[in-house]
This record gives sequence, structure tokens and C-alpha cells, in this order.
Amino acid sequence: MSRYDVLCIGNAIVDIIARCDERFLADNGIVKGAMNLIDSDRAGLLYSRMGPAIEASGGSAGNTAAGVASFGGKAAYFGKVSSDHLGAVYTHDIRAQGVAFDTRPLMGEPPTARSMIFVTPDGERSMNTYLGACVELGPEDVEADKAREAKVTYFEGYLWDPPRAKDAIRLTAKHAHQAGREVSMTLSDSFCVDRYRDEFLDLMRSGTVDIVFANESELKALYQTSSFEAGLEQIRRDCKLAAVTRSELGSVVVRGGETARIDAIEIAQLVDTTGAGDLYAAGFLFGYTQGRSLADCGALGSLAAGLVIQQIGPRPHMSLKEAAQQRGLL
Amino acid sequence: MSRYDVLCIGNAIVDIIARCDERFLADNGIVKGAMNLIDSDRAGLLYSRMGPAIEASGGSAGNTAAGVASFGGKAAYFGKVSSDHLGAVYTHDIRAQGVAFDTRPLMGEPPTARSMIFVTPDGERSMNTYLGACVELGPEDVEADKAREAKVTYFEGYLWDPPRAKDAIRLTAKHAHQAGREVSMTLSDSFCVDRYRDEFLDLMRSGTVDIVFANESELKALYQTSSFEAGLEQIRRDCKLAAVTRSELGSVVVRGGETARIDAIEIAQLVDTTGAGDLYAAGFLFGYTQGRSLADCGALGSLAAGLVIQQIGPRPHMSLKEAAQQRGLL
Repeated sequence: MSRYDVLCIGNAIVDIIARCDERFLADNGIVKGAMNLIDSDRAGLLYSRMGPAIEASGGSAGNTAAGVASFGGKAAYFGKVSSDHLGAVYTHDIRAQGVAFDTRPLMGEPPTARSMIFVTPDGERSMNTYLGACVELGPEDVEADKAREAKVTYFEGYLWDPPRAKDAIRLTAKHAHQAGREVSMTLSDSFCVDRYRDEFLDLMRSGTVDIVFANESELKALYQTSSFEAGLEQIRRDCKLAAVTRSELGSVVVRGGETARIDAIEIAQLVDTTGAGDLYAAGFLFGYTQGRSLADCGALGSLAAGLVIQQIGPRPHMSLKEAAQQRGLL
Repeated sequence: MSRYDVLCIGNAIVDIIARCDERFLADNGIVKGAMNLIDSDRAGLLYSRMGPAIEASGGSAGNTAAGVASFGGKAAYFGKVSSDHLGAVYTHDIRAQGVAFDTRPLMGEPPTARSMIFVTPDGERSMNTYLGACVELGPEDVEADKAREAKVTYFEGYLWDPPRAKDAIRLTAKHAHQAGREVSMTLSDSFCVDRYRDEFLDLMRSGTVDIVFANESELKALYQTSSFEAGLEQIRRDCKLAAVTRSELGSVVVRGGETARIDAIEIAQLVDTTGAGDLYAAGFLFGYTQGRSLADCGALGSLAAGLVIQQIGPRPHMSLKEAAQQRGLL
């Protein structure tokens, strides 16, 4: 018996979201489409230059946990906030979505992490993340029972940025595998892949990670290739299952000799791409933990990703369960 | 020479917005479509029952100020926040929109005001407002230069709820009228009209207020009539200019013997009605302070209101100036 479908582990971040034009990114040295790590001083500077914003709980794996729960799945989350206002907001939002979240908050400084997300007119988001309390996530935050009782543990590659989170991941993966569970990760961002390529490949090849989520540019960065198909054949060998997203081209899922190609859903209006990959993973893992086919898992992922990019913010404002039922996917 | 087009005065509130079903409102005793005043204990209780939320700066007149600025108008704002995280967010957002905001924040308790806004599937919003620091707004917060140098001063009827804000309004109106300016108000909410009917009528009949914004139910509440047209004839006599909104029926503007009837814009998808009246006032007052006809003012109001109800949150995510230009209104 599994108490959880998916346990997600990630940087617990509140998003501060505003629109900007292309020039703003250039003028402020923000790498477009990427997750830019910033310190406290730069966070203050960028906020002073940022337009009117809205705040919404985010964090890649946190968005995935919220998505799994929105589909009706049982989700849990490990992530570090501080005992401040944003930490209370983060905790409220993820628990209110029905996610089990019990990581002890940090008392005092640094504050809860925040990411200033600038959305350009093309809908692309460029993130500027101050990690704050996330740097304190460590193996002492691993709840072994949750790791053992979740069908799949899922974590973000971004966790290689803070110093001790990787130790928490390795410990969680050990508990999970000992209980016969599977472990998955997202490569997170092509620049993140550049920073930790060898370690990510080692996680896959050593069997610490069974299932990998990536987008096309992360896949190419991982194998330092310009060929999508070449990257796909390599990742097919390096892990048990890989799901690679390609924006409007849909996604490709490989498992041993199997290959499933899934279409993207039709988009009425692209508003904000924030959360697209996170929600794809949510839909996929929800389907996967319900024992659905690869094609069905991919279709659930496409649906969730397609819905979240038609709104502001990284977590869908509607019930994904109802949305999937309306489309005959559940 | 006017330094400002519109000076807005209101309760400075951060909105906490979540979706809910109809039953949630009934189960929690929330009056649908209304602004429900709550205390700190009830705020805690409702938040514990609220779903995942997003946070966005709001407050009726604050939204209007942001809307005027988004059209390219020069706006100023008086409102009281506390020196806490939400106060910093509020201050950032309104200044980042280009609004002059210099009201001294309250040091310490009570905290910055927040309103938990529940949006039902029909798009209607039901607000639950904890006034916090707003109760401290008083005549000492009136910046006489701004009152004298704004073409129109605009305030919300909601300001009759905190104890001393009405004194700030009367002082501001005095400065404004002495400088030959006009003063306007919104009736805010039909329950608010019920609480302060006689005082609101006195503001109009004494000439403290020249221009009144209301929706149909507020108009009917003010004159305790079930007839829209009867209410319209009464308000025509009680103030110099009145603009009355009627949701999808558009709006009617009366000034002495003049009457302008304005259509609502077509709505692709009604998402969240929060801010509709505030943004109508923004468009109208922007046009009015540029010397446009009543019909043009109403059309600008309809546009801004129609855009804000097709998104989450009370302040438009796009430039209203560009939206108006695209439709040939500017």
C-alpha cells in the first residue's frame, strides 16, 4: 500500500511575476528563458526596477506536487521555507492544494526564497532566483516514511545549487529504492545541466535516478549535441524512462525499446510559460502512478502544461482532474 | 497647471485571491458579491479554509489609480499600509505603476490590510476584508499640495468604515475645491451604501462631491428604489455628474440634462470580476481629465473594466494605453 503517489523535493520559492519588454532583459543582464541565480543585493536592485507584480507560490517541484494533487493524486513535498510571511504563504498554498508538507521551517534568516519572474510579450519567462532559506535544506529534512511510502520520488536538478540538498536527495533515493520505489528527476534548465552535467549523468547511470524529465534544450545540453534524435537515443540507454518535452511539438517518451510521441494541446492564447515543464511532469507522473500507458501519461502531461501556459502563474487555477475528465482523459 | 490628473484615496489592501464553489460561501457565511468586513480572528479562520491563492495589490481606489496610470495619466494615491512585508509589496506595486504614493506607513501593528477574495465559477468575487493599518488613515495623511494639484480627487465610499478616514476626505475635498478642482467618489458596495446612506447623500447634496460612480445595485440602495430609471433621475439631481455601471448592459452617464448610454465591450471569457468598477472609474476619469466627451469617457471605462474581468486580479496585466490605442479610443 502506498500512502503517496508522488513525493516531490525542491527549492520552495514564492514567485513574483511581472511583465516586461525584451529590452528590459538586455538592459539588466537577465538571460532570457533561464533561471538566473541572484544574491540578496541584486534581488533588491531588480525588484526596484520591476513593474507591478503578483505573488504566487512556485518552485519547480512544488508546482509539480500541486499539479499531482490537482489531478486528484496523493502528493507530498520536501522543501525549506523560513518562518516569515512568504514562508507562511508558501505553506498555506501547498497544503491548501492537499499536498502533505511538513518540512520544518528555518527560524530566522535567510528569508524564504523568491524568484522574480519577468514575462516578455512572447510569453517566455526569465527567472531571477534568490535561494534564501533553500540553502538550508539537508538530509535532516528527509522524512524516511514519506520516501518509502511514495510510489515515485521526484526532484529538481536545481537542488544541486544549494550546498546540502543533494545529500537529502541521495538519502531519499536510498529509502525509496530500498522500499522498491522509483526515483525521478527533472534536468530543470540547460544552464543547470551545464553546471552539473557529470553529476546528473552519474545519477542516471548509477541507477540513483530511474525516470528523467527534460526539455529539448536540456537534453541537448546534457549530451552536448545539436541533434534531438541523437540525444534521445543516448538518454534511452542512460535511464529506464525519459520524457522529453518540445514546446508546441509535444513530447517524446522513451522506455527501453518503446517510444511514444505525444501532441501538444491547442493553445488559444499563450500568456506565461512559467510552470510548463513542472506541470507536464505532474500530469505524466499522475498517470504513471495510476498505471496508465506512456501515451496516456504524456497526454495528461500535455494537458496540464497546455493549461498552465494560458494563465499567469505556475500552478493551474482550475481543477486538473475536472479538465482531464472534460477531455475524456480520466 | 495640474501636476496630477487624478488623486485617489482608499483603503490600501493586498488581495489574496482563490477560487471556491458556491457551497463554500454558504458554509462560511460569506455574503456573495459583497465586501464583508472581518476581524483578525476570522481572517485567520477563513485563510485556514481557503484554497491555494495568489496575492496581488488591490484596494478599490488603489486599483483606480493604477488604471489611470496604465492609460498614461498622472495619478497619485493616499492610503495607509504598515511597515511589514505586505506593505512593502503594496508600495512597490503602486509606485512601479507610476503612481505617486507617499503616505507614511504605520510603524508596527496592526499589519497591512488584506482581503481574501473568493471567486466562484460564475466569475463573481466575494471579498472578506481585514482593514488592519487602514484604520489609522486620518487628516494628518492629507498632502495638501497633491489635493490642490490634481484635476480630480476620487475616493471610495469604503473609507466610511475606518474611523478617521472621512476626516481626511473632507479636508482633501476642501483643499481641492479651494483650488477649483472637482471631487468624485464611488459608492463602493450596496451594503456600504446601506451603512452610510445619509452621509453619502449629504456629501452629494452639500457639494462636497461633484461626480459619483455607482453600479446599479448601489444606485438602487442609495435611493431605496427598485427602479433603475427612477434612481437615475434622482442622482441626476443630486450631483453634477454620475456614471452608473450595469455589468453586461454597459453604463449610463448623466450630467444635468445630458445622458450618454455606453455599451459594454464583448467578453471572450469572464474570469474574475474583481476590479471591474474600479477600472471603469479609471478609464472614465482618465478620459474626463483629458477633456473627452461623456461617451468617450464611458467607452474608456468600459474597455478597462472589460479587460480586467478577463484575468485574475484587480489591476490589468497589460498597458491600458496600448489597449485603447489598438481599439482607436486614443
